[in-house]
Amino acid sequence: MSNVVKVAVDAMGGDEAPRLPVEGAVQAAEEGVGVLLVGHEDRLDEELHRLQVPADVARRLEVIHADEVVGMDEPPITPIRKKRKSSVRIAAEAVRDGRAQAMVSAGNTGAAMVAAKMIIGSAPEVDRPALAATLPNPRGWTVLLDVGANIDSKPEQLRQFAVMGDLYAQQILNLERPRVGLLSIGEEQGKGNDFTKEAFGYLEASQLDFVGNVEGSDLFKGTVDVIACDGFVGNVLLKSAEALAEMVLLMIREEIEKSPLTRLGGGLTRPALLRFRKRTAYDEFGGAPLLGLKAGCFIAHGRSNSKAIKNAILRAVEFCDARTAERISERLTELHARDSVPGVVGE
Amino acid sequence: MSNVVKVAVDAMGGDEAPRLPVEGAVQAAEEGVGVLLVGHEDRLDEELHRLQVPADVARRLEVIHADEVVGMDEPPITPIRKKRKSSVRIAAEAVRDGRAQAMVSAGNTGAAMVAAKMIIGSAPEVDRPALAATLPNPRGWTVLLDVGANIDSKPEQLRQFAVMGDLYAQQILNLERPRVGLLSIGEEQGKGNDFTKEAFGYLEASQLDFVGNVEGSDLFKGTVDVIACDGFVGNVLLKSAEALAEMVLLMIREEIEKSPLTRLGGGLTRPALLRFRKRTAYDEFGGAPLLGLKAGCFIAHGRSNSKAIKNAILRAVEFCDARTAERISERLTELHARDSVPGVVGE
Repeated sequence: MSNVVKVAVDAMGGDEAPRLPVEGAVQAAEEGVGVLLVGHEDRLDEELHRLQVPADVARRLEVIHADEVVGMDEPPITPIRKKRKSSVRIAAEAVRDGRAQAMVSAGNTGAAMVAAKMIIGSAPEVDRPALAATLPNPRGWTVLLDVGANIDSKPEQLRQFAVMGDLYAQQILNLERPRVGLLSIGEEQGKGNDFTKEAFGYLEASQLDFVGNVEGSDLFKGTVDVIACDGFVGNVLLKSAEALAEMVLLMIREEIEKSPLTRLGGGLTRPALLRFRKRTAYDEFGGAPLLGLKAGCFIAHGRSNSKAIKNAILRAVEFCDARTAERISERLTELHARDSVPGVVGE
Repeated sequence: MSNVVKVAVDAMGGDEAPRLPVEGAVQAAEEGVGVLLVGHEDRLDEELHRLQVPADVARRLEVIHADEVVGMDEPPITPIRKKRKSSVRIAAEAVRDGRAQAMVSAGNTGAAMVAAKMIIGSAPEVDRPALAATLPNPRGWTVLLDVGANIDSKPEQLRQFAVMGDLYAQQILNLERPRVGLLSIGEEQGKGNDFTKEAFGYLEASQLDFVGNVEGSDLFKGTVDVIACDGFVGNVLLKSAEALAEMVLLMIREEIEKSPLTRLGGGLTRPALLRFRKRTAYDEFGGAPLLGLKAGCFIAHGRSNSKAIKNAILRAVEFCDARTAERISERLTELHARDSVPGVVGE
């Protein structure tokens, strides 16, 4: 684990902030990571006191005071316009100013993305940063992007999303050459809507291992490692998938409760369900990176537990250590250079 | 059950055709429904012979010969251009000619939709027919449409989809006034992409119980009864949901197999899992109606078992008995009349 990378944590973001973000940060510090905790100083001190953090861990924790908090229901623009002293904005400023190399927030997702885009800033080669979710499949994980950083993307931006997802998948899934698909309806090249048909041409000219169109079902089959889509579709998919998985488990539990024998069986299968939850748990990856920024930014779920926060911090460190942001810029620079050769793209 | 309605069944469509479609048709005939079995006469006779159908049931079955079959991987246009003697086309012709009031096919979905649209035809009030899926939630069912009859719909067409879904939900879910949502990202009116923002205005002026934007998560929560979306998004959602539910069950089974105790527990919980499957099984509704035609058309899953085929036939009869197609036309005529009053729509 890098000794140089520091991660700024929006300690006021999340359903149980600052308690869980502080706990997660302390766990990350125990593994050797330097963390800037951004939030109301008194509240953070209280939490640190409660946790009785030993001195050797505490020396890796720094507190930056922030007067304000962006609420879960406030508009995404809040940290820019109204709450300039909010924890999420000050975390982004810490990254911009080089005090940290990445930020993590489990707060208002829209506000965190806006703060990151406007204060850390996009890499100059990137049109639009994209949010990448990592979804389970029976054989491993699939990176899906964009899951909501953008609405109304342009087809050529899907190629950038794919390139960013490819490099992130290399890093996080330890793959040399991830298989990349374009989310569409129907697998053949001609299938899809106007948007995906145009995006197909750009992806073909992406120098990725582009396997062509994939369908909704491929998201949970492990057919490919990276799936590129428009942020509207990705967001709807991500939210529906979370709700469906919860519904399945809830309804099975309801049915199990209906008789003593199935209840007994349910008790016996508990270890299997826990293993299933572990295999598919979002907290393994701790959060979704906003790819395409000048630095690292991981958006954690509002319901993140301390382990999810810790993992988001660790993933942010790995992201910096693997130079994923820099590699995205380099790869897109190459692609832009190729584009300037006439006739390469889009036929 | 109606004694007048007859249903034309594409007996050659589906993974195990004609065996399962014939079995399903016989089961429907046992419940008093008149069925036209469309397919290769010799093959159908063989199946009917094998099933030893008693005469009182057999008299409700009629066989119409069709020389050709559209394969699962052939282009949707096949029954129109290349295979004019295909079972799916001849089933649609039987409806067009008034020999049946609805058709059912578990074959190539695209081909069935094209045959239905071009041969049965859209109602004059309908711009574009839409395919409606019925998805489970912990409290009941949600009608989602369009799930793939259209790509690149126009925002005003979403209002038609919503009206059609509303009337179908009234019929199938026995609701007086279904709650209708627009699939978007973010619940507030201003949220979404250009397409949904425009569609929102049309839905507000729809005289439906329009609750506004809903998110992907609402699909499996029972928040609303009907969700309108573009056919691209709906198709991706439907396919991903099927795959995710399968993945969850597969992975839980894998984990249960890993130890003798959890295997024992798995055996004991089997009745609960069966009840869960029954509560969520697609075959309860038998298929997805293509709404907006001059008559009924139910598209069943390619993997439909005979019960799913039977249910699709019974649902088609109910659809005709409830005059759902006629009520769609009436309601859209009213809406068109309102639209011609200036200033009603779209602000």
